[in-house]
Amino acid sequence: MISVGIVGGTGYTGVELLRLLVRHPGVRLQAITSRTQAGVAVADLFPNLRGETSLRFTTPDESDLGVCDLVFFATPNGTAMKRAPELLNGGARVIDLAADFRLADVPTWEKWYGMVHASPDLVPQAVYGLPEVNRDAIRGARLVANPGCYPTAVQLGLLPIIEAGLGDHSRVVADAKSGVSGAGRGASVANLMAEAGESFKAYAVAGHRHLPEIRQGLARAAGAPVGLTFVPHLVPMIRGIHATLYVHGLAKEHDLQSLYEDRYQTEPFVDVLPPGQHPETRSVRGANCCRIAIHRPENGDTAVVLSVIDNLVKGAAGQAVQNMNIMFGFAESEGLELLALLP
Amino acid sequence: MISVGIVGGTGYTGVELLRLLVRHPGVRLQAITSRTQAGVAVADLFPNLRGETSLRFTTPDESDLGVCDLVFFATPNGTAMKRAPELLNGGARVIDLAADFRLADVPTWEKWYGMVHASPDLVPQAVYGLPEVNRDAIRGARLVANPGCYPTAVQLGLLPIIEAGLGDHSRVVADAKSGVSGAGRGASVANLMAEAGESFKAYAVAGHRHLPEIRQGLARAAGAPVGLTFVPHLVPMIRGIHATLYVHGLAKEHDLQSLYEDRYQTEPFVDVLPPGQHPETRSVRGANCCRIAIHRPENGDTAVVLSVIDNLVKGAAGQAVQNMNIMFGFAESEGLELLALLP
Amino acid sequence: MISVGIVGGTGYTGVELLRLLVRHPGVRLQAITSRTQAGVAVADLFPNLRGETSLRFTTPDESDLGVCDLVFFATPNGTAMKRAPELLNGGARVIDLAADFRLADVPTWEKWYGMVHASPDLVPQAVYGLPEVNRDAIRGARLVANPGCYPTAVQLGLLPIIEAGLGDHSRVVADAKSGVSGAGRGASVANLMAEAGESFKAYAVAGHRHLPEIRQGLARAAGAPVGLTFVPHLVPMIRGIHATLYVHGLAKEHDLQSLYEDRYQTEPFVDVLPPGQHPETRSVRGANCCRIAIHRPENGDTAVVLSVIDNLVKGAAGQAVQNMNIMFGFAESEGLELLALLP
Amino acid sequence: MISVGIVGGTGYTGVELLRLLVRHPGVRLQAITSRTQAGVAVADLFPNLRGETSLRFTTPDESDLGVCDLVFFATPNGTAMKRAPELLNGGARVIDLAADFRLADVPTWEKWYGMVHASPDLVPQAVYGLPEVNRDAIRGARLVANPGCYPTAVQLGLLPIIEAGLGDHSRVVADAKSGVSGAGRGASVANLMAEAGESFKAYAVAGHRHLPEIRQGLARAAGAPVGLTFVPHLVPMIRGIHATLYVHGLAKEHDLQSLYEDRYQTEPFVDVLPPGQHPETRSVRGANCCRIAIHRPENGDTAVVLSVIDNLVKGAAGQAVQNMNIMFGFAESEGLELLALLP
Repeated sequence: MISVGIVGGTGYTGVELLRLLVRHPGVRLQAITSRTQAGVAVADLFPNLRGETSLRFTTPDESDLGVCDLVFFATPNGTAMKRAPELLNGGARVIDLAADFRLADVPTWEKWYGMVHASPDLVPQAVYGLPEVNRDAIRGARLVANPGCYPTAVQLGLLPIIEAGLGDHSRVVADAKSGVSGAGRGASVANLMAEAGESFKAYAVAGHRHLPEIRQGLARAAGAPVGLTFVPHLVPMIRGIHATLYVHGLAKEHDLQSLYEDRYQTEPFVDVLPPGQHPETRSVRGANCCRIAIHRPENGDTAVVLSVIDNLVKGAAGQAVQNMNIMFGFAESEGLELLALLP
Repeated sequence: MISVGIVGGTGYTGVELLRLLVRHPGVRLQAITSRTQAGVAVADLFPNLRGETSLRFTTPDESDLGVCDLVFFATPNGTAMKRAPELLNGGARVIDLAADFRLADVPTWEKWYGMVHASPDLVPQAVYGLPEVNRDAIRGARLVANPGCYPTAVQLGLLPIIEAGLGDHSRVVADAKSGVSGAGRGASVANLMAEAGESFKAYAVAGHRHLPEIRQGLARAAGAPVGLTFVPHLVPMIRGIHATLYVHGLAKEHDLQSLYEDRYQTEPFVDVLPPGQHPETRSVRGANCCRIAIHRPENGDTAVVLSVIDNLVKGAAGQAVQNMNIMFGFAESEGLELLALLP
Repeated sequence: MISVGIVGGTGYTGVELLRLLVRHPGVRLQAITSRTQAGVAVADLFPNLRGETSLRFTTPDESDLGVCDLVFFATPNGTAMKRAPELLNGGARVIDLAADFRLADVPTWEKWYGMVHASPDLVPQAVYGLPEVNRDAIRGARLVANPGCYPTAVQLGLLPIIEAGLGDHSRVVADAKSGVSGAGRGASVANLMAEAGESFKAYAVAGHRHLPEIRQGLARAAGAPVGLTFVPHLVPMIRGIHATLYVHGLAKEHDLQSLYEDRYQTEPFVDVLPPGQHPETRSVRGANCCRIAIHRPENGDTAVVLSVIDNLVKGAAGQAVQNMNIMFGFAESEGLELLALLP
Repeated sequence: MISVGIVGGTGYTGVELLRLLVRHPGVRLQAITSRTQAGVAVADLFPNLRGETSLRFTTPDESDLGVCDLVFFATPNGTAMKRAPELLNGGARVIDLAADFRLADVPTWEKWYGMVHASPDLVPQAVYGLPEVNRDAIRGARLVANPGCYPTAVQLGLLPIIEAGLGDHSRVVADAKSGVSGAGRGASVANLMAEAGESFKAYAVAGHRHLPEIRQGLARAAGAPVGLTFVPHLVPMIRGIHATLYVHGLAKEHDLQSLYEDRYQTEPFVDVLPPGQHPETRSVRGANCCRIAIHRPENGDTAVVLSVIDNLVKGAAGQAVQNMNIMFGFAESEGLELLALLP
């Protein structure tokens, strides 16, 4: 039984962490902080938790996060980099669900996130928490940078091809689509149902913060830079990411289906579909799972890979719990045996 | 460990039963039948079950339902009444999620369902499976009639007032709203997303089959007929029922909040909200829970009760598993510790 | 050709007014004001208007509203009561789409809206802009209080019965449902798609501001107070209101269908459906139309009236343009020949 | 005033044609046929048309289509090719909204549509009805093949680049997304709201029938084959198509923004957005408009073009009316001055 704290628990990754952790047999929830909701019962803000927890939000100052074995940061970008050092020094381990420690190159981070990094010295020791790539390093990590939602879907969809050095790495296209919960729980006009409902659009075509993160992951896998065009879109649904990935220049003889099946054979949370299928985002709604299908239209030299996740689960809180399980020696799927809600 | 079969598992109550049963520690799934899908792997039809079960649909004839301790009927109305007798005679117990055994009065059933009842002799021994009313009888039942979705939401919302004999029972109004999964998984124009989406309507105002079922339940609770107007509506969402219930003529001194809290104090799956709240259907999405709030606008003599369930869980498959747990001596919440998915 | 100004045009009633007015042959749009968007082209905020107008938002101060023949207030409650007097004194006529002049009783208004009324002297000369009731008075009005969205749907659904003195007026129930655009275009957590989507709830059961407005209208029609319980609900769709109305105690001999058809025979924007139908909100999406169906379940003494409008059209901007047409002698349907968008 | 008939008017393109034609000042609707709905009033099937038309569906046999100046086929693929010859011989002109005459190469058509073509001799005289390409030919055409919805959005988005011979034509990617009305009004499980709602998926990655149509159009524009990967997706909304188009290998000096603005400068129904914008499908909902934005992420050699239409308007019925206007000498925008419904 480990003692766990959550910093910033009023957003969607926060409530999703709670949904997973209140039933995790190895976890005791110590504290969940929020400056704005301090004093409010968690179950009053998130009625799905009524009867499940008597926790109340507390201010970060009054919270005894220092006694926690593990602290999750479910905060906006720029918070964990300020608060993590003290916790780490006190002996806690940290999983940041935001972006503070995802990019190894600090100047790149500062450019894309528009801030000076408060703890550049911690960046080298942060482990990028994609278990399918870094499981061993995660095991011993003190500080884990939980991947972004798009980067999880895109990397899991591209890794087998990229690692194998197949295709033309100079013109990879990742056309990604996300439900609106990816935009967070902050009040905004753009994400009102009357604005985002019954409509579809691309956004941030000029450059999205997840682009350098994906490029970093693909470059590590390839051993060289990968030329990637990444376009995110907003889908009028609540949960789910669908990445449609295009890799050109594949030789006929490569059996991509086998390549993917082999790569993910032992992965508990990656499911390679049989040939010809099209994964639906609802097939992973609420579940810590990435489902992938591989196509080669007209048997040509272009691969089209379809990769779906629930942005709040495998794309955020579920992956964070998976990382926690790895870090603390729990069974990797403990607390994550979730079946997608369908319909 | 009991052996369980499902007849007719290709609809939404079928897949929801599967979601609950594949993780139930006391259940071994023996067979699931479908004439149209015989031979197909369950996980191919319902991809959320990939990796969870290797079951395939079988025809009713080839299925060894006879060896089951319990058979669920997730079939259209009119099927269980024909197939249940043989199974009961063979020693199996039966829970019918359709309407065949819900009405004690056979002529009334035949009028509303437009069929001759095939097993009128079984009707008297069928127990109406609303645990909050009939828990003891369910325990020993061989044949359980699982309640309808609207009847569950409406009865749980009205029972405390009706049982207590409060208010004017001659003019009760139940204005009920359901998501589209309540209409089932059959191909139809009316339930296409392009038809049912972004629109709201009432239907069957002249008379819905759940009306006599609700009236029967209220009459039993009141010891006399209750005058009920019931209007169902279709909501452009997938899951959820919201019943808005109006009872006039309440004396000022009655403390309805306490009445409801007392009535449901020991019920594991009914949650009475604090005064002044408004339950959202999403607060029970995927969960076997009915949440209820009680209002008296302007402190007048009219009570407005708000009652929400997930039509596929507490309104169908979850309640069926709850009944199974009661019938076979499992903990009543075994396999039903489900947290609603929010957002 | 009249000169028209709009105060506060950045909300949904504002953009809807623009949609109707840019094509109205008798209208020249003079100015549209917004403090927050001053300088922005209207078509940049509302891309459906690209190519239709070169208007830019201006501050109220720099706008020459004084030269307008008519000024619409599409502002929050409490604005028109402060700004209208000057415009009226300058000779302009005013239609307020907010609530400032809807209630004849100022203390009641002040109680429900929580403000001191800034122009109580103007209240008596304001005409309640429901053409189906007040057409003649609207014709000569200088100041029109455009009705609320719920009040429009509920009153049009109940007026024939109430005016005729039929049924029990002490226990009328109006169970009303609205799409999310009714909540406006302000940034808010509650109306995010991730919050309001795929869920249904009642709100303001303790008392909604439209309650006194509806009661006022029904009392005028009945010549006596009407006992009304009004419960609004939020539907996960963008546009549309559906009111389900219950009146008890109707004698068998009353032919409600004929009553309604006669009452609305000459009304261009009220459509009484044939017996047995159920109007869908989408049948009026984008159209200035109220469709009504009348039921008597089981031929009993309770009438169930179903009334649908588009909350932004007949429930707001369309009705305002209808009032404008009446006030200025245009054909009443000028600029309002809109067909609902289906699907 | 021309006399117009519609064959097969019970689908979404049929009702959309009706919405446009009942208000068209130059059109008299002569007949609308449907075998299944013969005798039913059009306004009973499509309640948005109540009060707008007294037409009833008739069987094709009893309909006097022969007297029509123009007959629209809003039928499934394979109908117009059988019925058009007789009408053409009788002197009527024909616009087919289905695919029968879209592909110039009959064997290719027969392969993709799985039928023997019934009128291969008519194919050469059919004009592909994309006014932005074929306006002059449409003017004199007797038989117009109205383009598919995806082909309209994709071709309008790519034509300027392709016609100018810019970029690498061997690896163009068209990632397209459509609302569910594109799947038609036929009863189906896959398009139930409970199936298609709150989920996102690709489909037909192995090959969609619109692929050869797009390739044909691009090849004509380029004067040589274009290597295109086309992946359609289903979006949980009713109306709208968004095409995200990727063209690699563009030299730095090309000013794509000017290229597009010049190309479409005189087009009444194509709107090139200012640099940096992202068109939303709702900005064209209900309108006969294609809005396009051009991006070059990180100022690199890849163009990302965003193109949106309403699949039922510019992607079907609106474009058909535009073609009719051209064919019969009406103003091209007659009856098409439609503002998108927003929100």
